[in-house]
Amino acid sequence: MSEKGRLEAFTDAILAIAITLLALDLKLPASEAGKPLGEALLHHWPSYLAYVVSFLTIGIMWVNHHAMFSLIARVDRGVLFLNLLLMLVVAAIPFPTALFAEHLTEEDSSHIAAALYSGLMVAMSLCYIALWRWVISRPNLLHDHVDLEAARGTSRRFGLGILIYLATVGLSFVSGLATLLAHLVIALYYCFDQLSMRGAKAAGGEIPAQATGEKATDPV
Amino acid sequence: MSEKGRLEAFTDAILAIAITLLALDLKLPASEAGKPLGEALLHHWPSYLAYVVSFLTIGIMWVNHHAMFSLIARVDRGVLFLNLLLMLVVAAIPFPTALFAEHLTEEDSSHIAAALYSGLMVAMSLCYIALWRWVISRPNLLHDHVDLEAARGTSRRFGLGILIYLATVGLSFVSGLATLLAHLVIALYYCFDQLSMRGAKAAGGEIPAQATGEKATDPV
Amino acid sequence: MSEKGRLEAFTDAILAIAITLLALDLKLPASEAGKPLGEALLHHWPSYLAYVVSFLTIGIMWVNHHAMFSLIARVDRGVLFLNLLLMLVVAAIPFPTALFAEHLTEEDSSHIAAALYSGLMVAMSLCYIALWRWVISRPNLLHDHVDLEAARGTSRRFGLGILIYLATVGLSFVSGLATLLAHLVIALYYCFDQLSMRGAKAAGGEIPAQATGEKATDPV
Amino acid sequence: MSEKGRLEAFTDAILAIAITLLALDLKLPASEAGKPLGEALLHHWPSYLAYVVSFLTIGIMWVNHHAMFSLIARVDRGVLFLNLLLMLVVAAIPFPTALFAEHLTEEDSSHIAAALYSGLMVAMSLCYIALWRWVISRPNLLHDHVDLEAARGTSRRFGLGILIYLATVGLSFVSGLATLLAHLVIALYYCFDQLSMRGAKAAGGEIPAQATGEKATDPV
Repeated sequence: MSEKGRLEAFTDAILAIAITLLALDLKLPASEAGKPLGEALLHHWPSYLAYVVSFLTIGIMWVNHHAMFSLIARVDRGVLFLNLLLMLVVAAIPFPTALFAEHLTEEDSSHIAAALYSGLMVAMSLCYIALWRWVISRPNLLHDHVDLEAARGTSRRFGLGILIYLATVGLSFVSGLATLLAHLVIALYYCFDQLSMRGAKAAGGEIPAQATGEKATDPV
Repeated sequence: MSEKGRLEAFTDAILAIAITLLALDLKLPASEAGKPLGEALLHHWPSYLAYVVSFLTIGIMWVNHHAMFSLIARVDRGVLFLNLLLMLVVAAIPFPTALFAEHLTEEDSSHIAAALYSGLMVAMSLCYIALWRWVISRPNLLHDHVDLEAARGTSRRFGLGILIYLATVGLSFVSGLATLLAHLVIALYYCFDQLSMRGAKAAGGEIPAQATGEKATDPV
Repeated sequence: MSEKGRLEAFTDAILAIAITLLALDLKLPASEAGKPLGEALLHHWPSYLAYVVSFLTIGIMWVNHHAMFSLIARVDRGVLFLNLLLMLVVAAIPFPTALFAEHLTEEDSSHIAAALYSGLMVAMSLCYIALWRWVISRPNLLHDHVDLEAARGTSRRFGLGILIYLATVGLSFVSGLATLLAHLVIALYYCFDQLSMRGAKAAGGEIPAQATGEKATDPV
Repeated sequence: MSEKGRLEAFTDAILAIAITLLALDLKLPASEAGKPLGEALLHHWPSYLAYVVSFLTIGIMWVNHHAMFSLIARVDRGVLFLNLLLMLVVAAIPFPTALFAEHLTEEDSSHIAAALYSGLMVAMSLCYIALWRWVISRPNLLHDHVDLEAARGTSRRFGLGILIYLATVGLSFVSGLATLLAHLVIALYYCFDQLSMRGAKAAGGEIPAQATGEKATDPV
């Protein structure tokens, strides 16, 4: 298998594991042990919400990672290590997700958990844009048919994505719940945005790289 | 690798992880710590039963997912996100499985655990049928040789599958154990049904897509 | 990817996860919390031994699974479900491994843990031989160049493998530690047996299927 | 898939799982339960440091494993089992990582955790060099264009790598924190060393095996 193929497979495996490990935190904590099961399950709702938000977030990261790599023809060591850095951040998502789930209904702690969660999303965006900038500044890594101008244009969109995540850091100090819902809205926005604008283009089996040049690499 | 290939690989990885994580709940809980090991192991039987049922259920989902995708030639963003939604449900199966195992012998809690487990199976069926309907309403996503009429006929079979899972939700309020056994019977039925009707067809290495047009996409 | 290719990938993923999850049980249990770290680590030696034995056992299962599937040209539903049954058993190995590690130095409990561990190995052998017999009784599933007589001859070797594992069930009632060591010796025997007899044959990149016809499918 | 391809895929899966399981130990331990969240999170800093160090270490192992296997044309049973031994060591990394994280700020225990961690790195290097020596002493396992002299030269570099890890074992008895930081520096050194010296060579899609003959197989 090519270097690029193994990098994609390794990334997919890490994302698949991180996304599935999220479910481990659905378990009722020991603190719910004394209560009736129905009540304990209802009381545990922040876990379900946090699970859905983080699942969608990692899932969209997976979709975007594919879109980015459909433009990339070959990888160098810089791509390997920047991708590793991105994985280091993504693999850590279950940690603030669990904190969010556990402390969402506590006044002080929910702000801290929300800020940590949002901060990790900022870090993820930064890694993603660093990877993308590394690639487009080395055009020989890209497929020949990639429109380099359009590819550079996406960097501006990335800047916007980072701003949105920075805003959720600010929102953390207002309300933990509002922050989690904001991350849900962001995730759903990216889902439907991509769904409506790109779903119709897939007639050729592969989404053509040119067609995705402008939108394919949205920051998560 | 193609978009479709990476989607299959990602799905396989999530299913493989979810199915293997089920084994983590075989562990004796802390509440069994004081007892003699033999007695504790026997007392823990609901865990083994729940493990087998959920393992077979996810395993059959894997078989059916393959059968469905053997008819699909290419994927669009709608397939990506509906498949992601299906994975969100499947990856959560270890949670109600653990609840089932832990509360099966408790009168009130067993009904709640059973209803949650059955409800997740209904949600899984709904995601699966939504994915299938998305695909067959966009024939350009299917292989040319797929019989579109037969493919549409399977949607009626899906309706039946959802009805069966809805019936297990009702059964939950009668008996938790009966509900778990019903899920075992459903899983074994799908195993042997597919085994007897389709096992003989595999002479050509690949199960021909036409031959599987009618049966390949049974709801789990 | 072909049905066979996805089956191999799914199996590899489950084996890789099960083998890696074994490491979770290396952790010091809460019961060691009060002791000095050095003493607690030394006291925890059964965990390390159990980790090594189960790691080698699953690893050899992986090697043998590859050897078997290098003879198989195509799969049918029977192979899918028998393989799923084999995975159900293999994925459960971390459970008796943890029991073994936890109770190895307790008189009564060690016998029970050892019997459970050995019993699971018998079940694994039975699943493996059932899968092999299914395949060789349907020669169209095998590659053309496979020597069917030699392939059938391996079934007798399988019988021996099951007898050995049955013997370890008996040994469980004598000594838990002796049983674990017996499983270590069995695993090492298969390692070196295969190493010495087959290592020299790999000059052609692929181990030729004929050459492996007699030995490739040793029971684990 | 070829024997070599499945070995790479299996190895990638184990490394991906081990690297992702590291994140499970980011969780706040029960001993932090009573404290305010912010304080508990700050107090938990050894976990984050240990996570980053082990993540980079396993990640570089993955990069080096790829580099080594880009020189290998085919595998024999010896490669399978030596690789399995390497995986046995790598999959265990989360255990001393957790010990390191938990005991880093305790005087006596931190030395023991550091020595165990460093010892595992020595073991990992020994497995890696044993695998490499097995391969280069059987030139028919290598691609034709591999410069055998250069390949043998890397063995001397390996010796240096083992010496460095042995030095960290010694450092363990001086300071646990210094040992962890030393492992961080080693990991970062390998990152940037490879980045600067080899990143520019990737113009051809595949990093040419000759070009990597001298550096590709650095001990981790």
